[in-house]
Amino acid sequence: MCGIVGYIGNQSASDIIVKGLERLEYRGYDSAGIALMNGALDIKKGKGKVQALKNKLKASPAKGSTGIGHTRWATHGAPNDVNSHPHISESGDIALVHNGIIENYNSLKKELQNKGRTFHTDTDTEVIVQLIEEIYENGEEVSFEKAVRLALKQVVGTYGLAILHVDEPDRIIVARKGSPLLLGIGDGEMFIASDASPIVGYTKKVVYLDDGEMAIVTKDGYEVKTIEDVSLTKKVHELALSLDEIEKSGYPHFMLKEIFEQPRAIADCLRGRLDVKNHSVQLGGLTDVLDQLVNADRLVIAACGTSWHAGLVGEYLFEHLAKLPVEVEYASEFRYREPLIDENDVMLVISQSGETADTLAALRTAKERGALALGVCNVVGSTIARDTDAGVYTHAGPEIGVASTKAFTTQVSVLAMMAILLGQKRNTIEEEYAARLIEELNRIPDKVEQILDRSESVKEMAELFTYAPNFLYLGRTYNFPVALEGALKLKEISYIHAEGYPAAEMKHGPIALIDAMMPVVVIAATDHTNDKMISNIEEVKARKGRIIGITGEDNEEVINLSEFSCPIPETEDCLSPLLTSIPLQLLSYYIAVNRGCDVDQPRNLAKSVTVE
Amino acid sequence: MCGIVGYIGNQSASDIIVKGLERLEYRGYDSAGIALMNGALDIKKGKGKVQALKNKLKASPAKGSTGIGHTRWATHGAPNDVNSHPHISESGDIALVHNGIIENYNSLKKELQNKGRTFHTDTDTEVIVQLIEEIYENGEEVSFEKAVRLALKQVVGTYGLAILHVDEPDRIIVARKGSPLLLGIGDGEMFIASDASPIVGYTKKVVYLDDGEMAIVTKDGYEVKTIEDVSLTKKVHELALSLDEIEKSGYPHFMLKEIFEQPRAIADCLRGRLDVKNHSVQLGGLTDVLDQLVNADRLVIAACGTSWHAGLVGEYLFEHLAKLPVEVEYASEFRYREPLIDENDVMLVISQSGETADTLAALRTAKERGALALGVCNVVGSTIARDTDAGVYTHAGPEIGVASTKAFTTQVSVLAMMAILLGQKRNTIEEEYAARLIEELNRIPDKVEQILDRSESVKEMAELFTYAPNFLYLGRTYNFPVALEGALKLKEISYIHAEGYPAAEMKHGPIALIDAMMPVVVIAATDHTNDKMISNIEEVKARKGRIIGITGEDNEEVINLSEFSCPIPETEDCLSPLLTSIPLQLLSYYIAVNRGCDVDQPRNLAKSVTVE
Repeated sequence: MCGIVGYIGNQSASDIIVKGLERLEYRGYDSAGIALMNGALDIKKGKGKVQALKNKLKASPAKGSTGIGHTRWATHGAPNDVNSHPHISESGDIALVHNGIIENYNSLKKELQNKGRTFHTDTDTEVIVQLIEEIYENGEEVSFEKAVRLALKQVVGTYGLAILHVDEPDRIIVARKGSPLLLGIGDGEMFIASDASPIVGYTKKVVYLDDGEMAIVTKDGYEVKTIEDVSLTKKVHELALSLDEIEKSGYPHFMLKEIFEQPRAIADCLRGRLDVKNHSVQLGGLTDVLDQLVNADRLVIAACGTSWHAGLVGEYLFEHLAKLPVEVEYASEFRYREPLIDENDVMLVISQSGETADTLAALRTAKERGALALGVCNVVGSTIARDTDAGVYTHAGPEIGVASTKAFTTQVSVLAMMAILLGQKRNTIEEEYAARLIEELNRIPDKVEQILDRSESVKEMAELFTYAPNFLYLGRTYNFPVALEGALKLKEISYIHAEGYPAAEMKHGPIALIDAMMPVVVIAATDHTNDKMISNIEEVKARKGRIIGITGEDNEEVINLSEFSCPIPETEDCLSPLLTSIPLQLLSYYIAVNRGCDVDQPRNLAKSVTVE
Repeated sequence: MCGIVGYIGNQSASDIIVKGLERLEYRGYDSAGIALMNGALDIKKGKGKVQALKNKLKASPAKGSTGIGHTRWATHGAPNDVNSHPHISESGDIALVHNGIIENYNSLKKELQNKGRTFHTDTDTEVIVQLIEEIYENGEEVSFEKAVRLALKQVVGTYGLAILHVDEPDRIIVARKGSPLLLGIGDGEMFIASDASPIVGYTKKVVYLDDGEMAIVTKDGYEVKTIEDVSLTKKVHELALSLDEIEKSGYPHFMLKEIFEQPRAIADCLRGRLDVKNHSVQLGGLTDVLDQLVNADRLVIAACGTSWHAGLVGEYLFEHLAKLPVEVEYASEFRYREPLIDENDVMLVISQSGETADTLAALRTAKERGALALGVCNVVGSTIARDTDAGVYTHAGPEIGVASTKAFTTQVSVLAMMAILLGQKRNTIEEEYAARLIEELNRIPDKVEQILDRSESVKEMAELFTYAPNFLYLGRTYNFPVALEGALKLKEISYIHAEGYPAAEMKHGPIALIDAMMPVVVIAATDHTNDKMISNIEEVKARKGRIIGITGEDNEEVINLSEFSCPIPETEDCLSPLLTSIPLQLLSYYIAVNRGCDVDQPRNLAKSVTVE
């Protein structure tokens, strides 16, 4: 994710950039750095928060009125000094900051290494700056701007970039694909940022770059063109947001922002991993252990909270697609007995933060017993990520809202990819079915977007349920964990007592709770249990429970039986949790807002549970 | 467990006995039968409810003014015509009805077979009637009464008995050990019954037999003596109960009756299976499959509702004591995916009624895939009992209250015995520890009794929480399933939204619910997680949650931290669910009564869920 700031004008670039980075810090605080143009490039950077950078600058100020800065949320490479931005080319003449993920960095890196270039970091970003220099210095004679364009044509992935070159001290080159970037137009000065928060207070006039666009920015103006070198005239927007709002990108809460980020977050998670054309999945983080995983007797998944729910979806996925027996454990329970796990088993831990204490302890217990330890984490370089033998990052970007949303859907996306990959390697899945799943997975971000486009109807529905004292959530198979997760969301932020159940268990007790005061959310999105779910709906209705149906948009029967419904686009049964969870997130969010709850900082909770 | 009625006087014995059996029908309705003295013995009996017997009698009346009758809740032998009571001796001269379980029936049967006796039924009961006849006909010359006494001295187990012999048509001999029996004193007529319900309406004067007592009953009176032949003078009691009440044995609800029956139910469940002296466990129902079970790769437990909670305790027991990996599945979920189970696995299904539809379907799915199928059921001859390859009955007696209580504790008792047995056979448990567990298991009925003796304090506490809108239940390891079960009980009968969690999961969401309106039941009865539970209690208290602590009576720290506490006798960690569940049953019962709920027939629920 990361935050980018740039300045070119007559003021002290350092002050403006550092202030901007502070405002961007919610986007990541693994490291921070700046590069100022001052004859040569003056670079100050290192691990830690922006405050650490400020301390460095206090001891040794960086002068100049042109510069770029970066605050990092690590994706590739541990959060340390070396991996922090700005990154410089081998000659030291180019400095670059980057937000996004370069998918083909590995092959580009090898090419550049073959050409004699030496790399100093583990990041994907260093590849870009080296590639630009390689083209600029050793290719045909081209301008620096053209070298950037030529480099970007070779790059696969996402980026927001700001680049300085000592040969051209009066300009900053920026480019965007997939990661936001905007220009702020001042009076004899220009601002660059990954979102508007660092600019507010200096200027209200902004230009938003679109994907595939770049700009050459000087203190007196800017020129926007495509990376194909076609000049463009961009509309100048007037910023209407307060500082407070803008830190949440215009959303009233981080949680809502993160809900709406999911199409991008899931796309980031899938990017470079799904090969739709060849119907294959590549998970680089698992390459070294793939054989061991393929031959495992059993997979034990340990996690807490929302990640545990993702693990339950994982159980259904792995057992269905890879025919690998899976046991899902509460990490806290697993650690306090003598668990039966050995070197024939694989332990998979799931944690957004990668710091969850119980999950970490479960991981260590499993490792002591010789099990292969895998992780699915969001935070790169976190303790769990470091302590596992291998793993897959979710690349969801920093999750600031305490109630997890995009962490869940990206975890499920990773587990789906893992299950398909394993299914293919274990020959337990028909090729045609695998192909269909890969194609469908690739369409999920668009389908999530379609659901989000209908958020207004969920908001309206939420009005009606604002005062409900209790909720039940029912699902079967893949959507039983979604029922648990939907209930947890409501509990966490609205403090309504909500509970999830496998639909058939309702009759073994919870049905006694059902009366006209009990809304029941029924997630009926898997085909082969549809008839059973319809029976369950009838049973609830017979007791005057009010039905909110989350179901396929073509499932007229469930829609007609439901008092309210949230239709979701049709998809493969086993991928449906990626869609059905979205309206449940929105429902809990809007109800909590109606109840006046502090959505981003719900009472009693903390983002990452690092105590037992 | 079965009902007994007898009559001797001047009226039609058939009418009085059949009417009495109808009133006893809640104690079992697998079969019904009568034996009338009419020169010879006139026996009418067969499978099915009392109505079936009435139909038989209508077609072919049985005449006489002396007789005995029985309605059966099968324990040994399927509920069919042959196994129905009264049972007759080989000569046909003796008829006998029995309530209870004869533990050493197998060795007695062999002895009698060696002496040339032929058996016609699968019951334990037939052994008694044959043994009496063997002594009476082929032993030293003794009176029939003495033959009965001599026979009973050889019998190990429990019984309520009523016996007729054609040689002595003017008397009925009765005896009691462990199974209730009383005499009703009329005017020129006497009544015999296993509880007072068949007698109310004829006489208010009753004599309750105690264990080890027998009586010779004639129409004009009775003589009570010990089976050692010491004559006794018994107090005559005045019945003060209405018919409606008496069917619940004086308890206002079946549920409360069943809660208080648990010391006996658990003792019945353990009887003949625990050999405390030799530190061994015998589970006859598993003998034929024990090798296969010992060598299994994995045990899959499938169940619903309360039985699923017992299964979760089973998982901890089997993994701890027998080091056998266990996966516990919701039966409804198991059946609707393609479960990974094969001939190397063992499927264990748990169901009180033995008729639970989803559990039965899970069982059949597992069998189709070649797994060994075991059952833990309460109802003998139920579909699940018939469809499994082997199994263990809980012998809890009929459970009429819809909210399961004694079913749970007896299921856990069976699972504990199975786990110890397997642990011994698999050499995964130290002999000393096994011995300690067997001794402790044997003490459980007494310890349950101690907890029940303190029920008044739970009742007082329940007053305070009558209006609580929500409850949380927290436990760790063995008591995490107890937390789930405690919450389910409260939900089922009081309609309070209660939820159970592994204590550590609280911080991953549910803690947001906690405020001064949220009572939190903390089950802190396992030593090795005590410190962690104390931390959890502190966390709840910091949010003003009210703590009800279920903990060891010596655990002063938890008792002092709790606003209310239910101390339980100290026991082995892994057996603690048998004790900690008791106060939770009482708490839910008293709260439900305070709220005016129909405890025995809670809204929306049914006793045995035979639909999906």
